[in-house]
Amino acid sequence: MRVYADNAATTKMSAAAISAMLPYMDKIYANPSSLHSLGQEAKEALENARERVAKVLGCEAREIIFTSGGSEADNQAIISAARIGERKGRKHIVSTAFEHHAVLHTLDKLKKEGFEITLLDVGEKGIVTPQQVSDAIREDTALVTVMYANNEIGTIQPVEEIGKVCRERGVLFHTDAVQAAGHLHIDVKKQNIDMLSLSGHKFHGPKGVGVLYAKKGIALTNIIEGGAQEKGKRAGTENIPAIMGMTAALEEAVKNIDTNAEKVSAMRDRLIDGLSRIPHSILNGDRENRLPNNVNFCFEGIEGEAMLLLLDDMGVCASSGSACTSGSLDPSHVLLAIGRPHEIAHGSLRLSLCEENTEEEIEYIINAVTQVIFRLRSMSPVWRDLTEGRQQFVIR
Amino acid sequence: MRVYADNAATTKMSAAAISAMLPYMDKIYANPSSLHSLGQEAKEALENARERVAKVLGCEAREIIFTSGGSEADNQAIISAARIGERKGRKHIVSTAFEHHAVLHTLDKLKKEGFEITLLDVGEKGIVTPQQVSDAIREDTALVTVMYANNEIGTIQPVEEIGKVCRERGVLFHTDAVQAAGHLHIDVKKQNIDMLSLSGHKFHGPKGVGVLYAKKGIALTNIIEGGAQEKGKRAGTENIPAIMGMTAALEEAVKNIDTNAEKVSAMRDRLIDGLSRIPHSILNGDRENRLPNNVNFCFEGIEGEAMLLLLDDMGVCASSGSACTSGSLDPSHVLLAIGRPHEIAHGSLRLSLCEENTEEEIEYIINAVTQVIFRLRSMSPVWRDLTEGRQQFVIR
Repeated sequence: MRVYADNAATTKMSAAAISAMLPYMDKIYANPSSLHSLGQEAKEALENARERVAKVLGCEAREIIFTSGGSEADNQAIISAARIGERKGRKHIVSTAFEHHAVLHTLDKLKKEGFEITLLDVGEKGIVTPQQVSDAIREDTALVTVMYANNEIGTIQPVEEIGKVCRERGVLFHTDAVQAAGHLHIDVKKQNIDMLSLSGHKFHGPKGVGVLYAKKGIALTNIIEGGAQEKGKRAGTENIPAIMGMTAALEEAVKNIDTNAEKVSAMRDRLIDGLSRIPHSILNGDRENRLPNNVNFCFEGIEGEAMLLLLDDMGVCASSGSACTSGSLDPSHVLLAIGRPHEIAHGSLRLSLCEENTEEEIEYIINAVTQVIFRLRSMSPVWRDLTEGRQQFVIR
Repeated sequence: MRVYADNAATTKMSAAAISAMLPYMDKIYANPSSLHSLGQEAKEALENARERVAKVLGCEAREIIFTSGGSEADNQAIISAARIGERKGRKHIVSTAFEHHAVLHTLDKLKKEGFEITLLDVGEKGIVTPQQVSDAIREDTALVTVMYANNEIGTIQPVEEIGKVCRERGVLFHTDAVQAAGHLHIDVKKQNIDMLSLSGHKFHGPKGVGVLYAKKGIALTNIIEGGAQEKGKRAGTENIPAIMGMTAALEEAVKNIDTNAEKVSAMRDRLIDGLSRIPHSILNGDRENRLPNNVNFCFEGIEGEAMLLLLDDMGVCASSGSACTSGSLDPSHVLLAIGRPHEIAHGSLRLSLCEENTEEEIEYIINAVTQVIFRLRSMSPVWRDLTEGRQQFVIR
């Protein structure tokens, strides 16, 4: 059996998304900037996709910029807000300690330019409060950027309330919704969101394409200079096949959002219950306010990489943290942010489901993880010391 | 009949490129940063593609960065060289007046930061000389960036000799090879190229993907911050399907490069001869040193947009300049750079062929263009004034 439980890293493209892409590869393949009819057909498809994405997000088509992915959208949103702020003498940004690196590393860059960054504590539950945001906002705050749902532990942030605070205080609010889009309801107007990033490949769409929503009136700064595409704000020939594929996938995900959430969260809960029975295991992130598809545990005395490889031998595709940093030996900054000690953070397992997973697969995962944990612990001298009381447990 | 003659704007994806993409959409779809076997399969494909692209360009795999396209690659190459230069107190860059906007607008940005930019004159033929480059290089020159072949008039620059000058003078040399890749031989080592950009969709590969070659030892600056992909130099989940498609298309193009060039340049020459018979027409760019697929004419007394629309009615897909700026009313900066007056530059026609065009199509284009020009001129009072000697011709 092969069970793919790494949907937060990336998803299998849906048949609908692939079908939506294909005609734009070798039929309506022209450059949408070309004036001839084949170009104009491509242009119409592009603008139709923009309208459809806008409808899903609850905004206007002109507020949508297509990018090469979530990272680019995050970079552009933050840099744009920084430049707007800077022109008004505002060089302070509020964010959280457990954002995606596309946000954190962009903030690092701004810090080197003299911006001051406040990273809010996310607590053990992995949720920031609107009050924390309110307390952190200053006269010179240019931007609040808080992710909609965390990519490792799946916790959902109160974006609507945070947006409200930002609006009242006259501060721009950006949310990285890469993990949320297609899984949680989004309505940028109702949720007081000024800028939002999403990525096509997290909801069965293609890789290499994303969206930056920016409320009208926000002057975007280019990340990529060149041609006048995307109202001059994102140069490069528009990737129409990918845009069409992403749009189809987004619509499909949103159409089925409630039924999928119900099905997937039932599997998630079963998985959480099953893995909680493993001794010295702990769920990372709030149990209630989390993505329907996210399960993240720490297992004491376990080294994450060994666990993943053994699980892989049993056909279970999972990850220890985000895929983006999996090459690194550092423990997850997200798990450190929710207060897990280094040695515990190293023993983390993220299982991220989708509606194609089955109950049978869930039972298989529970069984496989349980076996792997027992096997690894049985081989570990440190673990024997721990269980025989020569060292103290760190978790419970 | 529909004749697509806008291959410099973008190309139809080849069957080989599409076939190369598909398995990575819904079979080997995992994130290459994931440790599990499905992720590692994706990773192997990625590194295999990198080896293959490196082989085509004559460099090492580790010198290849995959980007979202040619514009991003141009931006990253130039910004990187600027940052390297700046650290040594070198804030001067040499380029040409007819580069793509991905280069020119990036240079504009650097100019605002205090860089000094020398844009070389390209003469009426549209070719810069190594001597011009040599004369322009100063003690504080950080970079020379000269395109391999121009995107509007197709003229080929002496990159190998320019590279030699740069190497002798210890200055980094970047070339935007977006129009050249797949059409002209590239060997970055032999040609003394330090950095090179290319784009997948200009040689029957997918849109939304490109390559930045950067010689080992060149410290790249990130354009997109985030995850540690591409050795930490380009964040964002790798777009494996597009990378595989581009690699297949590049190999196919290079395998057939000489036979395609022979076939396509014969059609080009027939087209140039045919269109030259239209009175008061002039070929833009050197006749010899030009891309096998590029034809670019100015027709006096003609408004480019009207010409394109009438040609489109007759099924001919062409452009007046680059697709990237076609929405603009400004005349082409390339045609102005080779000395065409504004009113002539407005009447330009670019026909860019590929190996799928046929001799029959070429005759059809000659016929269609000739008819359109005569029709438009017959309706134009200005033209009647000109032909009746009340105004002077500008071209010949």
